[in-house]
Amino acid sequence: MNLSHKHAALYTDYYELTMAQGYFLSGMHEKKACFDYFFRKLPFKGGYVVFAGLQDLLDILQDYTFQEDDIEYLRQRGFKESFLTYLKHFKFRGTIHSVKEGEIIFPNEPAVRIEGTILETQIVETLTLNFLNFQSLIATKASRLKFAAGDRTVLDFGLRRAQGLGGIHASRAAIIGGASATSNVYSAFKFGLVPSGTMAHSWVESFESEIEAFRTFSKIFPDNSVFLVDTYDTLNSGVPNAIVVAHEMERVGNRLIGVRLDSGDFAYLSKRTRAMLDAEGLDYVKIVASNQLDEHIIKSLEEQGAKIDVFGVGTSLVIGREDAALDGVYKLSKYDSKPKIKISENIEKVLIPGIKKVFRYYNLENKFYADAVVGVDEDELNMMIHPHQSAKRLMLKGLRKEELMSCVMQEGKILYDKLTPYEIADYAAQRLLLLPDEHKRFEYPHIYKVGFSAALLKVRDELINEKLNILE
Amino acid sequence: MNLSHKHAALYTDYYELTMAQGYFLSGMHEKKACFDYFFRKLPFKGGYVVFAGLQDLLDILQDYTFQEDDIEYLRQRGFKESFLTYLKHFKFRGTIHSVKEGEIIFPNEPAVRIEGTILETQIVETLTLNFLNFQSLIATKASRLKFAAGDRTVLDFGLRRAQGLGGIHASRAAIIGGASATSNVYSAFKFGLVPSGTMAHSWVESFESEIEAFRTFSKIFPDNSVFLVDTYDTLNSGVPNAIVVAHEMERVGNRLIGVRLDSGDFAYLSKRTRAMLDAEGLDYVKIVASNQLDEHIIKSLEEQGAKIDVFGVGTSLVIGREDAALDGVYKLSKYDSKPKIKISENIEKVLIPGIKKVFRYYNLENKFYADAVVGVDEDELNMMIHPHQSAKRLMLKGLRKEELMSCVMQEGKILYDKLTPYEIADYAAQRLLLLPDEHKRFEYPHIYKVGFSAALLKVRDELINEKLNILE
Repeated sequence: MNLSHKHAALYTDYYELTMAQGYFLSGMHEKKACFDYFFRKLPFKGGYVVFAGLQDLLDILQDYTFQEDDIEYLRQRGFKESFLTYLKHFKFRGTIHSVKEGEIIFPNEPAVRIEGTILETQIVETLTLNFLNFQSLIATKASRLKFAAGDRTVLDFGLRRAQGLGGIHASRAAIIGGASATSNVYSAFKFGLVPSGTMAHSWVESFESEIEAFRTFSKIFPDNSVFLVDTYDTLNSGVPNAIVVAHEMERVGNRLIGVRLDSGDFAYLSKRTRAMLDAEGLDYVKIVASNQLDEHIIKSLEEQGAKIDVFGVGTSLVIGREDAALDGVYKLSKYDSKPKIKISENIEKVLIPGIKKVFRYYNLENKFYADAVVGVDEDELNMMIHPHQSAKRLMLKGLRKEELMSCVMQEGKILYDKLTPYEIADYAAQRLLLLPDEHKRFEYPHIYKVGFSAALLKVRDELINEKLNILE
Repeated sequence: MNLSHKHAALYTDYYELTMAQGYFLSGMHEKKACFDYFFRKLPFKGGYVVFAGLQDLLDILQDYTFQEDDIEYLRQRGFKESFLTYLKHFKFRGTIHSVKEGEIIFPNEPAVRIEGTILETQIVETLTLNFLNFQSLIATKASRLKFAAGDRTVLDFGLRRAQGLGGIHASRAAIIGGASATSNVYSAFKFGLVPSGTMAHSWVESFESEIEAFRTFSKIFPDNSVFLVDTYDTLNSGVPNAIVVAHEMERVGNRLIGVRLDSGDFAYLSKRTRAMLDAEGLDYVKIVASNQLDEHIIKSLEEQGAKIDVFGVGTSLVIGREDAALDGVYKLSKYDSKPKIKISENIEKVLIPGIKKVFRYYNLENKFYADAVVGVDEDELNMMIHPHQSAKRLMLKGLRKEELMSCVMQEGKILYDKLTPYEIADYAAQRLLLLPDEHKRFEYPHIYKVGFSAALLKVRDELINEKLNILE
């Protein structure tokens, strides 16, 4: 499943290309534009999102070209020769400001700002949304699983149920959000993740007896044996056989790493299994559980005192159940030096025009307190305002703040040193520690405050009046 | 976003490779095995699944090899040299029987049967599940959207919200299930799909006035103009401006294809828009609607008499909301000439061992009536039996039947001529016509009957007894 950036320019919605040709043939294509990436609705009824996917996006944008067969394909669709000639020499030379990958972000604040010509900023819309929406969704899910698991380990076992090739970046994002390793070998190879796995039921079934299956595996993988104990009967066959072979391993100086439970009641089975192992002096043998886990089940198991050391999570992690999509959007905020707006029937969807940045304010305990979206030239803010309920205001004067976005790509060139997914995961974990726990709880999390500067809202209100006047 | 089959052998769970090495070093790797692919739970609370993804899977299996850098990666992980040498020359030479791509399938019946050595059949498990689960999910979703839409058109607009690169095969599966075209240019290029798209809000915002945006577009795309009419005010600005430009197009011999509604109440807006267009003699201008559609909303719009000709469906189509995963599994049914079984704590998950095929029976109206899973050597069946409630039986004697599976790959070589996604879609549509409507309705669909032959169940029961005796 090799992925190269070849044809990446076709990984887009058709209308990006029709509009691009439209801008080109109208002579508008060199006009300057600015788009914001942000999302509106928190996934999983949760309180935050872990931003992910940036590095993969930038890697593609830095290489973004139309190849001969891409152009031939568009020629067959009826695109004009002059435009195709332009595309042949096209490179993405936009400038991108972004929050760091792994940052904790909230609804309605721009996480990424892409500036450049209208043509180049428009044409990358679909790619940007596709990459950032998905990885942010899965990194967020993984962080919730890890939050529930506490100091226990979370593993990504999801490839078989992933949405096709979506599994490739799902595993990367799972690591960013807090998983320790993945079953997905291709993603481990491609992104430098730790691969993990031992045996399935079919291994056990292929032997005349369960104990022979365990014994054979232990000889071939003396350092990586985790026995799957539920093929026939967990407590009456699987665990007793695992104990016998664990002792055999001890006699030749090896140690069984763990046993894996894959069906039944994990609270009951893990406690009984722990007791059986401990009674045999096998307190070092870990208990792995896998089968339809999610953060709510993990939380419940922890509350019941289940004796599980490692949670292998598949489907719900890699598809981001229950939501399976982050609703991130990419909206024009400025064109040809003029702030731009779309007036929706739904007031919550009216955009805040202009080039913007984000300040994060800390409370007196040095935890995240509120985020303020401000104009790019604003430096100090005494107060932020709710975008649709102007009476809702929050005083910010005197609070420590930091600016969240920095320039990550300048005129098409990536500006920073690449981080590994584990380094990004460390950053996300540090930031999550700064987010008060009430924003992380699963039931009705406290809503983190995001507001706007008075200056930005004034521009929006003037633009709305101007557009409505035109309509009258 | 080029996809090649390079590294496809790493697109697997790590345990497939540890087990493969285990089989190899134990000298078991050439033993014959058979695995079944089937699913257990119908997605979307629906009554059926449209099987998809087969051709993509077979294409990869026919090319399946480990490359130098794959092997070097496994060497670094500690895999043994003798096994790595074996992998260097490894090719998949299995034989595969499958139902046709586009077939309508039901829970617990094998859709695909993979036979070969235990090593080669085991190692392709993850790939098989990943491809078939996802495309079948999305083809099924698309078929539901098309069922709701009737003779209206369904378009795939989902790439921006797709699960990363999952979008690539999502668009192919959407076509198989009944979508007519896709916004996804890469998938259109790769699979020969019809690409579709015109303009976004940013196009309209980039002009001084909405009418100028429409006019400019109509000149550049006289044959492919669909105006997005909700940027400022659908009925007071968007539609009136579209009408003016439509008349301008008529004067130079062109025709506006459509207008697109992207917000607001579609029932109300589409009726008003239709009336406004018709009053101007523009009855040929189609109305496209897009924004958070799914099959339930489309059904409701149809019931309300909405005047929508084309439904553009994004997120819910390409991620398969609300389910987002099909729970397909891949289970060992025979190894070294012996039928195999896994005894689960959950009786519904106990497998039916042996090499199996599927008969589909027709009722007297020549519609699908019931499916019977039988041993590969069984030719006639008078009766089928529920796998877990043996009193539930269905007489089949005298009913017309057909065998659903055929050999699609023989010793690693694809046996049939490739079909285009549209040809597969035609087959799926024909088969859906043969499925009685009560299985297609959205609320509590009638459960299609799947049973097993007495001979198969006898083998299962004997094996369970044998395994339980061992445990005593």
